[in-house]
Amino acid sequence: MFAITQTKPGGPETLQWEKVSDPTPAPNEVIIEIAASAVNRADILQREGNYPPPPGASDILGLECSGTIASVGAALTLDRIGERVTALLPGGGYATRVAVPIGQVMSVPEGVDIVTAGALPEVACTVWSNLVHVARLREGETLLIHGGGSGIGTMAIQIARALGAQVAVTAGSQRKLDACAALGASILINYNDDDFVQRIKDETAGRGADVILDNMGAKYLMRNIDALARNGRQVTIGMQGGVKGELDISAMLRKNVGVFATSLRGRPDSEKATICREVEKHVWPWIEAGVVKPVVDRVMPMPEAGAAQTLVESGDIIGKVALATP
Amino acid sequence: MFAITQTKPGGPETLQWEKVSDPTPAPNEVIIEIAASAVNRADILQREGNYPPPPGASDILGLECSGTIASVGAALTLDRIGERVTALLPGGGYATRVAVPIGQVMSVPEGVDIVTAGALPEVACTVWSNLVHVARLREGETLLIHGGGSGIGTMAIQIARALGAQVAVTAGSQRKLDACAALGASILINYNDDDFVQRIKDETAGRGADVILDNMGAKYLMRNIDALARNGRQVTIGMQGGVKGELDISAMLRKNVGVFATSLRGRPDSEKATICREVEKHVWPWIEAGVVKPVVDRVMPMPEAGAAQTLVESGDIIGKVALATP
Repeated sequence: MFAITQTKPGGPETLQWEKVSDPTPAPNEVIIEIAASAVNRADILQREGNYPPPPGASDILGLECSGTIASVGAALTLDRIGERVTALLPGGGYATRVAVPIGQVMSVPEGVDIVTAGALPEVACTVWSNLVHVARLREGETLLIHGGGSGIGTMAIQIARALGAQVAVTAGSQRKLDACAALGASILINYNDDDFVQRIKDETAGRGADVILDNMGAKYLMRNIDALARNGRQVTIGMQGGVKGELDISAMLRKNVGVFATSLRGRPDSEKATICREVEKHVWPWIEAGVVKPVVDRVMPMPEAGAAQTLVESGDIIGKVALATP
Repeated sequence: MFAITQTKPGGPETLQWEKVSDPTPAPNEVIIEIAASAVNRADILQREGNYPPPPGASDILGLECSGTIASVGAALTLDRIGERVTALLPGGGYATRVAVPIGQVMSVPEGVDIVTAGALPEVACTVWSNLVHVARLREGETLLIHGGGSGIGTMAIQIARALGAQVAVTAGSQRKLDACAALGASILINYNDDDFVQRIKDETAGRGADVILDNMGAKYLMRNIDALARNGRQVTIGMQGGVKGELDISAMLRKNVGVFATSLRGRPDSEKATICREVEKHVWPWIEAGVVKPVVDRVMPMPEAGAAQTLVESGDIIGKVALATP
């Protein structure tokens, strides 16, 4: 098969597209002939040497894919060969083939083309697990999403709306805020112009956000706590603003709030499988009904993964960048 | 009526027992003729000037009581006058009479004498709300309780056992650890001899605690996170080890853990009423069945509240110190 490989950690120039040996499936794994993968910020951290793959995972980049089941491991029946699927991967998506545990294989939502489908697993599983299981977002609550125009952000806006929540977003340009509004966000905060803490309080009669989906980590820690309503929950899923920050526990205690930090990749296979089943059951029907739309800014050829990552790093996109195999 | 009053913040010597005017009930309040209250660490902070009462609350110390309904507010029917009750108070418990919203009035569990009952509301409501609602402790999980010999600790051990959890405790003496064991704790950690992080890992095959009930705040923040299992939840309800500490968000993210800080006193009346109804429904039957036992180290006369607080501060007690009205 072909894959994006890398000889040493570094910038996008360290990536190349070349022939490598095919993966072999463990007994409970399938081999997917990949149609598309997509860029995640975690891929960029891994490329730079700052996010090593978990033990046992491929060292090829790529946390999601779509494609067709080409073969199956010894413990699995053959009848799924040829099925069009999507999958949440521990790695190995920037390639023409990948091995993945059967539990992390999902269907392709009806009406979604196979390339777009390759950009769905990470955002759907991340948003569902964090909003529903971790933060327990409820109907009528207010969710604040930092980076509303990102892949995660565009999916989180729509899933939160489908759950009956009001959505606030931060973003760095009017173009992104317009896109967020079109997806269902009703409180639009340009972080270059406004203080998000003050704005979210102003827009909620002083209450604040019930849930915050955060990608900044340390930089926003205390401001997020300030922006939370009583009994609010913050979930950090990215640390673009640093990993260590001072926590004022008394500020949390006064409002009975909780701070979580989670990653999808580090979860054991059993938890990932549970999340995948729930996403198939709850999120795919919303996509099939047109309630939730995949947001793919553009599709690039997988051999140009380095350029695609640079585009994601620039922040100048809305939604995901998909990588189609040649 | 008589009450403990204070002319300026300070030590126990600033407290005196003297005649003051009777409280008058708001329309939805009852007046309780108090049989007993009990000492909470929050009372000591308030005495020192470090924990002002919430707006509208009595400036008399005391967050719980037992007694008899003496009169009722204009919006309430008279048929409850004479009923023996317990109550969660926003303040005013160190007195012979107190006004309290009807939603925070609970029954007296059968088989519990009226003085012991005065030491139940704070620990029962605090432990129930934090273990069940905030931390969502489940059957088969492991709970680590810091200060297992305290009023909160002795109640938390028993409620967690009743919920089907395994219980680990920290305490500073073998006498306290023995008491915790008698109440159902199975992992006993003397913090003077052992590192609790290492011990909890050793005792759980490396997993750690699913839930930690913490009274130390900043001092234990990162050690608690280290001691948590995957998907673990820490709940800080006291800050005896400081309010501000450095948080390493990446350490949380690797394990998908959450950190909460809560206080019962700051909750709005509607939330307190919900908690009181659940405590009556779930905790009182456990007490009536002998599954959960109130742990009162000793009963002191309410006029000696200062000496009782000094005893609680010394840490040389197991469970609660009740204050009986003369």
